[in-house]
Amino acid sequence: DFMNALDEVKPLFGVAEEELGKCIRWGIFHFSNHIENILDEGGLYINQVRKPDSTPLLSVVLHGPPGSGKSALAAKMAMDSEFPFIKLVSPEDMVGFSEMQKVIQLDKTFRDAYKSPLSVIVIDNIELLVDWVPIGPRFSNQVLVALKVLLGKQPPKNRRLIIFATTTERSVLQQLDIFNRFDAEISVPNVNTQNELARVMQQSGAFSDEDQHRAISEIQDITGGADIGVGIKKILTGIETAKQDQDMVGRFARVMSSAIAARGYI
Amino acid sequence: DFMNALDEVKPLFGVAEEELGKCIRWGIFHFSNHIENILDEGGLYINQVRKPDSTPLLSVVLHGPPGSGKSALAAKMAMDSEFPFIKLVSPEDMVGFSEMQKVIQLDKTFRDAYKSPLSVIVIDNIELLVDWVPIGPRFSNQVLVALKVLLGKQPPKNRRLIIFATTTERSVLQQLDIFNRFDAEISVPNVNTQNELARVMQQSGAFSDEDQHRAISEIQDITGGADIGVGIKKILTGIETAKQDQDMVGRFARVMSSAIAARGYI
Amino acid sequence: DFMNALDEVKPLFGVAEEELGKCIRWGIFHFSNHIENILDEGGLYINQVRKPDSTPLLSVVLHGPPGSGKSALAAKMAMDSEFPFIKLVSPEDMVGFSEMQKVIQLDKTFRDAYKSPLSVIVIDNIELLVDWVPIGPRFSNQVLVALKVLLGKQPPKNRRLIIFATTTERSVLQQLDIFNRFDAEISVPNVNTQNELARVMQQSGAFSDEDQHRAISEIQDITGGADIGVGIKKILTGIETAKQDQDMVGRFARVMSSAIAARGYI
Amino acid sequence: DFMNALDEVKPLFGVAEEELGKCIRWGIFHFSNHIENILDEGGLYINQVRKPDSTPLLSVVLHGPPGSGKSALAAKMAMDSEFPFIKLVSPEDMVGFSEMQKVIQLDKTFRDAYKSPLSVIVIDNIELLVDWVPIGPRFSNQVLVALKVLLGKQPPKNRRLIIFATTTERSVLQQLDIFNRFDAEISVPNVNTQNELARVMQQSGAFSDEDQHRAISEIQDITGGADIGVGIKKILTGIETAKQDQDMVGRFARVMSSAIAARGYI
Amino acid sequence: DFMNALDEVKPLFGVAEEELGKCIRWGIFHFSNHIENILDEGGLYINQVRKPDSTPLLSVVLHGPPGSGKSALAAKMAMDSEFPFIKLVSPEDMVGFSEMQKVIQLDKTFRDAYKSPLSVIVIDNIELLVDWVPIGPRFSNQVLVALKVLLGKQPPKNRRLIIFATTTERSVLQQLDIFNRFDAEISVPNVNTQNELARVMQQSGAFSDEDQHRAISEIQDITGGADIGVGIKKILTGIETAKQDQDMVGRFARVMSSAIAARGYI
Amino acid sequence: DFMNALDEVKPLFGVAEEELGKCIRWGIFHFSNHIENILDEGGLYINQVRKPDSTPLLSVVLHGPPGSGKSALAAKMAMDSEFPFIKLVSPEDMVGFSEMQKVIQLDKTFRDAYKSPLSVIVIDNIELLVDWVPIGPRFSNQVLVALKVLLGKQPPKNRRLIIFATTTERSVLQQLDIFNRFDAEISVPNVNTQNELARVMQQSGAFSDEDQHRAISEIQDITGGADIGVGIKKILTGIETAKQDQDMVGRFARVMSSAIAARGYI
Ligand SMILES: Nc1ncnc2c1ncn2[C@@H]1O[C@H](COP(=O)(O)OP(=O)(O)OP(=O)(O)O)[C@@H](O)[C@H]1O
Ligand SMILES: Nc1ncnc2c1ncn2[C@@H]1O[C@H](COP(=O)(O)OP(=O)(O)OP(=O)(O)O)[C@@H](O)[C@H]1O
Ligand SMILES: Nc1ncnc2c1ncn2[C@@H]1O[C@H](COP(=O)(O)OP(=O)(O)OP(=O)(O)O)[C@@H](O)[C@H]1O
Ligand SMILES: Nc1ncnc2c1ncn2[C@@H]1O[C@H](COP(=O)(O)OP(=O)(O)OP(=O)(O)O)[C@@H](O)[C@H]1O
Ligand SMILES: Nc1ncnc2c1ncn2[C@@H]1O[C@H](COP(=O)(O)OP(=O)(O)OP(=O)(O)O)[C@@H](O)[C@H]1O
Ligand SMILES: Nc1ncnc2c1ncn2[C@@H]1O[C@H](COP(=O)(O)OP(=O)(O)OP(=O)(O)O)[C@@H](O)[C@H]1O
Ligand SMILES: [Mg+2]
Ligand SMILES: [Mg+2]
Ligand SMILES: [Mg+2]
Ligand SMILES: [Mg+2]
Ligand SMILES: [Mg+2]
Ligand SMILES: [Mg+2]
Repeated sequence: DFMNALDEVKPLFGVAEEELGKCIRWGIFHFSNHIENILDEGGLYINQVRKPDSTPLLSVVLHGPPGSGKSALAAKMAMDSEFPFIKLVSPEDMVGFSEMQKVIQLDKTFRDAYKSPLSVIVIDNIELLVDWVPIGPRFSNQVLVALKVLLGKQPPKNRRLIIFATTTERSVLQQLDIFNRFDAEISVPNVNTQNELARVMQQSGAFSDEDQHRAISEIQDITGGADIGVGIKKILTGIETAKQDQDMVGRFARVMSSAIAARGYI
Repeated sequence: DFMNALDEVKPLFGVAEEELGKCIRWGIFHFSNHIENILDEGGLYINQVRKPDSTPLLSVVLHGPPGSGKSALAAKMAMDSEFPFIKLVSPEDMVGFSEMQKVIQLDKTFRDAYKSPLSVIVIDNIELLVDWVPIGPRFSNQVLVALKVLLGKQPPKNRRLIIFATTTERSVLQQLDIFNRFDAEISVPNVNTQNELARVMQQSGAFSDEDQHRAISEIQDITGGADIGVGIKKILTGIETAKQDQDMVGRFARVMSSAIAARGYI
Repeated sequence: DFMNALDEVKPLFGVAEEELGKCIRWGIFHFSNHIENILDEGGLYINQVRKPDSTPLLSVVLHGPPGSGKSALAAKMAMDSEFPFIKLVSPEDMVGFSEMQKVIQLDKTFRDAYKSPLSVIVIDNIELLVDWVPIGPRFSNQVLVALKVLLGKQPPKNRRLIIFATTTERSVLQQLDIFNRFDAEISVPNVNTQNELARVMQQSGAFSDEDQHRAISEIQDITGGADIGVGIKKILTGIETAKQDQDMVGRFARVMSSAIAARGYI
Repeated sequence: DFMNALDEVKPLFGVAEEELGKCIRWGIFHFSNHIENILDEGGLYINQVRKPDSTPLLSVVLHGPPGSGKSALAAKMAMDSEFPFIKLVSPEDMVGFSEMQKVIQLDKTFRDAYKSPLSVIVIDNIELLVDWVPIGPRFSNQVLVALKVLLGKQPPKNRRLIIFATTTERSVLQQLDIFNRFDAEISVPNVNTQNELARVMQQSGAFSDEDQHRAISEIQDITGGADIGVGIKKILTGIETAKQDQDMVGRFARVMSSAIAARGYI
Repeated sequence: DFMNALDEVKPLFGVAEEELGKCIRWGIFHFSNHIENILDEGGLYINQVRKPDSTPLLSVVLHGPPGSGKSALAAKMAMDSEFPFIKLVSPEDMVGFSEMQKVIQLDKTFRDAYKSPLSVIVIDNIELLVDWVPIGPRFSNQVLVALKVLLGKQPPKNRRLIIFATTTERSVLQQLDIFNRFDAEISVPNVNTQNELARVMQQSGAFSDEDQHRAISEIQDITGGADIGVGIKKILTGIETAKQDQDMVGRFARVMSSAIAARGYI
Repeated sequence: DFMNALDEVKPLFGVAEEELGKCIRWGIFHFSNHIENILDEGGLYINQVRKPDSTPLLSVVLHGPPGSGKSALAAKMAMDSEFPFIKLVSPEDMVGFSEMQKVIQLDKTFRDAYKSPLSVIVIDNIELLVDWVPIGPRFSNQVLVALKVLLGKQPPKNRRLIIFATTTERSVLQQLDIFNRFDAEISVPNVNTQNELARVMQQSGAFSDEDQHRAISEIQDITGGADIGVGIKKILTGIETAKQDQDMVGRFARVMSSAIAARGYI
């Protein structure tokens, strides 16, 4: 099973488009300037690595609340680089791996990357990769140390590598003394204002102008005008749910309101 | 033994009717509106997953006191979906499994589910599945992290999956940082009022109207009119026990009273 | 050795009379009404399980001070049931077993029980079975979780099972969150009053009426009339020791007094 | 090596005289009534087990300060029993054994004992056998639980067994909840008074009456007449050392004084 | 994989020039007297070891903030020694090694060194080599003890060895009781003054005199004249980044300012 | 590798002269009466063991500050005994050994010793042998318990054994409850007074009388006349270093001063 898993990691030298594509199910909505800035910043780092006379290793961590779009943005940056080697490392592909197997898999991915002149590695959900659980606390020391070491390991001559990592647990990474080993951090925000929410609704194409106004004012009524503070993923799932309801507007308003109130279902 | 256990997990693509049936030994009694609402809510989530243009992954956790009917309701929802793949994952089928074997079994179940266009997985008693013991506290980190990852793992294209999990330990799941990875939660209540108890007795067909009145007034006498607050499972076992007694009414009253007073035997 | 041990567990479908018999070395003395009541209660649970239309699974825990007769009473109930499958699970037969081997042995015993229409399983000294040591505290999580799961696992159709467990550590079982998974608890008392002690002495046939009076009044003299509070096992061993002494009465009085004073030797 | 070790445990049915003899290098000195009483008490327990109509299992723990003679006395009692099976279980023969190997060795010794109609097992230095270290604290749970279980396990029919165990750590055994599983305890004292010391010196045959007086008065001078409180083992080694010195008396006095003052060398 | 890894450690008797060269990507800038002094001190230790009548074993630890140039300076000293055996031991080459494998690798490196009359071993990032993580704290006891022992192990006759180790965690090494096993410590400083920064900029050849002045005054404006306190590695990476910007001066000023303010990206 | 290591332990019956010789690189300097006394005390214990009618087992622990000469003195005593079996047990020869392998090696050494009529075993750096690290604290329980047991295990008939152990961690050994299992302790001091330092310098033959005076007065100037308190090992290394400097006196003074001030390099 482990051997199979290793085999499945095909594109030794190529691009894991399908896997990355799954991270961007709904594309990227431009609901605020932040999104633009984040993508620009990512492009800047990629260009820096691309230059043959510059540092051959850069690592960037995207952090933000659950569902804010960290994985989608990391995947987008990776694909936009058009580097010949792009690979996604995700806990989802390591279910049932021992600590050592995870480390071997990580090491293998980096060795593969070193074979390409230009490489991107996306490491998704680091806190899950290191088996973080707040009780104890517990985590995989082996995977953590391997990550620390690999983040600082210079590629061989004429090989250049950029790493994008994602996490919801910025402060955990700090406690684990791995956060400051990244060269840069990018903060990914929730959809926070009514204006931003409106832009998401508009770009979704699901609401007429009137419906949109009605929904937003209903939400305002229910929440007393509180800030939104909901991840783009929940909002897009909510729109989808609402579309299946005859009272799309009312349904969307309720779903959003409970999401705003707490960590409810959308 | 482990290999056998894996083999026994037959219905790779099919429905585990027998196993689910065992969860609903006495059927579903409609002793309050809550029961209806719970089943409706379950149906709603199932319908959402069924729609091909909607989110392909939903997870719902049913929590409530011991014996309140969580497993029965989850099994009912699963069977009512009529999805081609329905599977029950239960600690009962994993006695003697190592942590890794549990993870492999879980992973296998999910992989099997991904082969069907529409799937339901019922994960019973998560707190036992992760070997939770309050002293320490101790739990299986491997199983916990595997569950976390699998709850968020998108199925492949054209595959749609809904997960129902049950637990008596809502706050433990919160501490373990897995509770908020469910898309929705459903709270399953005890039988709480005399009215609800009466409806259970009536639907059981074991009491004449008169007996029912006598029993309830006896219970009131003994408990001083306290709220019932007993799980449906204990009540139905109690009725069964009472039916074997010549003084069915008196016996049932005593059994119920001690159940109300504390966690006694029924 | 482990394989042998597994083989020794012969009566897949039959009664472990010899093993149970060893638990009742001196028979059952009726030194107080409690003994009668306890045996009645046990019979009642057994009859309930026997009825084909009733709940097919019941579990009862006998708890009480060391040597109070828990194992003997559990064995008596089991043998009185005359069920076709009766099995004793004891840490004594698992010396040198790993945690996993214990779990496998437990699981096997339950699987064997499920093959018989009516089964009793006696689980002796649960706190030792789970390797409980108060320092740490330490215990075997694997065995504990296996027990929890097996206590709640419904037998297959037309199979009915009753479980009797014994322990000196009621509160430990509560802390370990396994106590409330039993359907019923039975409290086994020490020999507490002079009257009860007298009845034990009488039923032992070792003392003339006069000797009995002398012994008891000597004990009263030494202990200042304190309550007895000694387990039946210690008393019966003490009588045996005394019978080998020329001054049987004096010896018995001393032995009892030191047992009463503290946990001395009898 | 482990297999060899198992093989070396020859006398499956016989007496380990040589091993026991090594424990009684200097024989038993009768320096106080206590010694007599201890040996009597041991003989009494042995006789009780010998009687076919009495309890077939007795366990006795000898505890006392380091070097007070616990092992020697246990060995003496065992040899005096003249039981056909006598075996010494000592950590010295288990260096390099894993926890499991120790348990298997223990279990094997008991199984061998059960083959003889009358058996003695001496378990030396229980606190070392369970790998006790106060820091942590740490100890071998497996060995501890195995000991607990074996101490309470009834031999088969017509088999009778007495167990003598030794320890310097009475309170540790209490904390570990194994102390009260012994049927009896025997406290082994140091050589405590000048009178007792004099008797040891006399029985050693190393001192003339005059030398003895001089030595004791020198010791009194140095220690200011403090109580002796030294184990018999240290005193006998001290006499041996002194015998090699031209100034035997002065040397013995110094050696004793420093032993009295603290845990020095003798 | 592990075997391969062992094989890759070729130069059993030779110089690992390439690996060491990677540590000195930008050469050594002489931005302050400290640099000279450090290299002199290193040379002095090397010369001492070189002398056949002197101590055949010396160990030196270089400690300082992240990116201050510890690895580069250690590599420089090693290469300048022109000893026939020079070897770099780095966690980067041990990703996926078990504790034991790391110890075997370390041991092997030292054994190889003992074969050469004069040897240098550079041990990079000791805190990572021992898997140090502050939470817990956790670390590899096996690797730590092996390092302690190897640091004090005299080479065989006519073999002479100097060890350079690097670390960012001086106080951790003290807590782990390994720091004081080094014969000497060398403290490696950040670039701390504007003057030092200016010398770095000048030696980089990237700035005209005017640009340099402008950049420094801009930095002063932004930071309010705070001390620099940035590692040479970050500064050199920053210059490289700035060179790719049209507004090189402004860019460099911003990059430096954020590095000064905190642990930002350069 | 482990097998090789075992093989290398050749002199089953013979003397490990080379290994012991390495411990006494500079011979023994007689810089104070203490040295004489220590060696005398060692000789006394050896003579006691030599006598056939005396105790056949003695164990002595040498403790003192780092570099004070513990290993050299233990080696000297061992070699001076001229016993037919002399063996050095050192953590240096056990790098990469598992706990169990260390125990097996220890056990083997003792078994080998038991084959010789007279044996010395030197156990160097016990605290490292048991993998002691103050954080946690951590240590190898297996090795510790094996040492405890072996220290008290009587050799077979006509076999006599003395054990010398060294440690810098007297109080740790006390906490671990192994210190008081030694029959005797010897405290090894630093070079503490100017007079002692002068004698070391003189015996080294490196200084003219004048140079010696100048050096000592310079040291006095720098340290303000503080006590020396430096281990002989550091002083002798310091003299060696100074000899390579043209300004031998000044250099030695500086080296000594910093050693006196703290645990600096010499
Ligand atoms: N501006 C945006 N930024 C990111 N994602 C967007 C944006 N607009 C739309 N999306 C969509 O929203 C979803 C974001 O989900 P994603 O899994 O990336 O969030 P996440 O923060 O990684 O969640 P988690 O915390 O669960 O890992 C994606 O499906 C993506 O296509
Ligand atoms: N309205 C109802 N809801 C749930 N179960 C019902 C209802 N009416 C009757 N039942 C019966 O009650 C029993 C409920 O037991 P179930 O095992 O589902 O409870 P549970 O909450 O899962 O218990 P546990 O906490 O032990 O896991 C089932 O046998 C079911 O057939
Ligand atoms: N009324 C009685 N109840 C129980 N045991 C009795 C009674 N009368 C006599 N006995 C005898 O007393 C002994 C009770 O010992 P038993 O081992 O059952 O006690 P226990 O409570 O299980 O001890 P432990 O705490 O050590 O497990 C048995 O030998 C049994 O034959
Ligand atoms: N009255 C006595 N009781 C016990 N031992 C005696 C007595 N007289 C002489 N001896 C001798 O003293 C020695 C006692 O040593 P022994 O090893 O039995 O002590 P111990 O208490 O077991 O020591 P430890 O605490 O190290 O296990 C034996 O050699 C024994 O022959
Ligand atoms: N004076 C100098 N001292 C050290 N390195 C210098 C100096 N001048 C230029 N450099 C360059 O600066 C870089 C220093 O990086 P290096 O990896 O040695 O730092 P480090 O302190 O080991 O970092 P880390 O804390 O990440 O291990 C090297 O590339 C080296 O070529
Ligand atoms: N009087 C002396 N006592 C001991 N060693 C001496 C003496 N005079 C000279 N020496 C030399 O000093 C050195 C002492 O070093 P040694 O390794 O024995 O110290 P140590 O206390 O064991 O050190 P560590 O604490 O590192 O184990 C040896 O090389 C020895 O030859
Ligand atoms: Mg994500
Ligand atoms: Mg349930
Ligand atoms: Mg019992
Ligand atoms: Mg002893
Ligand atoms: Mg470095
Ligand atoms: Mg030493």
